[in-house]
Amino acid sequence: MLVNARSTAAPGAPFEATKIERRDVGPTDVLIDIAYAGICHTDVSRARSEFGKTNYPLVPGHEIAGTVSAVGGEVSKFSVGDRVGIGCFVDSCRECDHCKAGLESYCRVEHIRTYNAVGRDGKVTQGGYSEKIVVDEAYVLRIPDSLPLHEAAPLLCAGITTYTPLRHWKAGPGSKVAIVGFGGLGHVGVSISKALGAHTTVLDLTMDKEADALRRGADAYRLSTDSTVYTDYADTFDLIVSTVPANLDYDAFLQMLALDGTFVNLGVPKRPISFDVFSLLHNRRSIAGTLVGGIEETQEMLDFCATHGITAEVEVIDADEIDRAYDRVAAGDVKYRFVIDISTMATT
Amino acid sequence: MLVNARSTAAPGAPFEATKIERRDVGPTDVLIDIAYAGICHTDVSRARSEFGKTNYPLVPGHEIAGTVSAVGGEVSKFSVGDRVGIGCFVDSCRECDHCKAGLESYCRVEHIRTYNAVGRDGKVTQGGYSEKIVVDEAYVLRIPDSLPLHEAAPLLCAGITTYTPLRHWKAGPGSKVAIVGFGGLGHVGVSISKALGAHTTVLDLTMDKEADALRRGADAYRLSTDSTVYTDYADTFDLIVSTVPANLDYDAFLQMLALDGTFVNLGVPKRPISFDVFSLLHNRRSIAGTLVGGIEETQEMLDFCATHGITAEVEVIDADEIDRAYDRVAAGDVKYRFVIDISTMATT
Repeated sequence: MLVNARSTAAPGAPFEATKIERRDVGPTDVLIDIAYAGICHTDVSRARSEFGKTNYPLVPGHEIAGTVSAVGGEVSKFSVGDRVGIGCFVDSCRECDHCKAGLESYCRVEHIRTYNAVGRDGKVTQGGYSEKIVVDEAYVLRIPDSLPLHEAAPLLCAGITTYTPLRHWKAGPGSKVAIVGFGGLGHVGVSISKALGAHTTVLDLTMDKEADALRRGADAYRLSTDSTVYTDYADTFDLIVSTVPANLDYDAFLQMLALDGTFVNLGVPKRPISFDVFSLLHNRRSIAGTLVGGIEETQEMLDFCATHGITAEVEVIDADEIDRAYDRVAAGDVKYRFVIDISTMATT
Repeated sequence: MLVNARSTAAPGAPFEATKIERRDVGPTDVLIDIAYAGICHTDVSRARSEFGKTNYPLVPGHEIAGTVSAVGGEVSKFSVGDRVGIGCFVDSCRECDHCKAGLESYCRVEHIRTYNAVGRDGKVTQGGYSEKIVVDEAYVLRIPDSLPLHEAAPLLCAGITTYTPLRHWKAGPGSKVAIVGFGGLGHVGVSISKALGAHTTVLDLTMDKEADALRRGADAYRLSTDSTVYTDYADTFDLIVSTVPANLDYDAFLQMLALDGTFVNLGVPKRPISFDVFSLLHNRRSIAGTLVGGIEETQEMLDFCATHGITAEVEVIDADEIDRAYDRVAAGDVKYRFVIDISTMATT
């Protein structure tokens, strides 16, 4: 079927109304009427071809929330009317040990990204800036009733991206966590870290978001440009989660890790990162990276957020406002996530 | 008391016979007649002031094996005649949580290195290139009877330095380990890895040590300069332990790590290390560093080596041969550890 969408035709080209083809609903497929799609920083980078591998025309969007409008004959987990979400990937090999362990994002073959990848049918995947999407039920998440769809959409990327390192490195009562960057990922990550029971400190470039961070549960909020931070928190954190895609002074950040502490990169800096090995030897420290979690953990995250009342803070925009939103995301001018109201797509 | 020793007076200056003062045996002290002292690569770097913080005249040596010749009145663990060893440190604060947890090398105040540090008495510590040493019994290791002293001495640094990451990251049956560099540390590390039950691959710059590695239990031995290694072993190793102090192509090495794999640095490259964060994100990889283990783990390592018949392969030299040995260590020309026969010190 043809559905309304917004696409960009070249790096920096404005988004335009278009129609894209969605596949027929197969036996194990779910057809989703998309209500909201979040704008992730990755969308902006990909649309501007900053990773160098963009297929145009591109329909971004991997923070998708909507309702089921049709299901294939073999679908067992979802029914018409269910509130559902789609995150960063829509398929994987389903056969390898990682897929079978519920770690589809680490599929040995490839996890098929929600857009700008090549699907099982050989066609380039197109994302959530569109009215409908068809996805195999194994890659569809259930959004709990207590989470409003527009505030739940960003959880499908920002939520699981921060949840997975916090869980993997066992943030919880007695542990001390620092979240670097209080933005789209960071503002959700702070709430999750606190809900897990960890003492949580925010490190950011500006102080203007301090009140929001404290309201969301942060125990402390400090300027990362203040050199006293690094001595005040020397040997302190069990886990530092960096949500920022910028190159940092890694030696300075590593000095803040306690014994067996880990610094986790979620954001991807443009240049290689660099630091002195001595910064790792002291306190037996590690530096690590994670992708988003698998489907099982993503569902766990959504249920956890429902239990703890955690949602993203969003600015809902019309489909015609994507270009301006992109400029503001690139400038860091959003509190804390733009979400496109897909209902505005048909009428504009 | 005054004891014979060998010291160097400046970076690159030849070793000379000298006498150094050892403190009186205090209530909890052990006096050790040193039989053998290993020559670690760190000794060479420190003697040549490559770390920039050397106090001269310097008596190196932190791989010490000998016998107890006197004990203080409150000593409970050792008796005259016991076979004992001293490793990389001879004291620490004894009060912090790390010390109390048996992780003295990560002491929050400072672990007092066996040489070139400032001891509790305010004097600069002097190492094992000497006839006797006085150490608090809490920092003395027992060398099992089945381990010859000259082959056990290197275990006090090379042994524990490789044992601690292999244990911490749980090398064992079903896991795949790579040891980078088959030298002083690597040749002991391979044996320990195998004895722990891990599939063990050696990566080295030359093939001339392959037979030794296979004899010591390696399952495979490959040239790290052969680019096919990195594809052959893509996504394979649970743990890569780098014993080399050189800057590597970290992105290439990281690609060989399996899901949740860790690359551990033991050697310290002269320049900062650098790599692309993408190399960590894929497979949720980590890069880490460790110091030597604590006293409890060092004793565990010695007992483990005795159980499994693991010793270092050594070339025993006279005290007058230290300078030439240093040149050969710097050139990588030793199989696999020089050990000074301290009995040659008095007569030369």
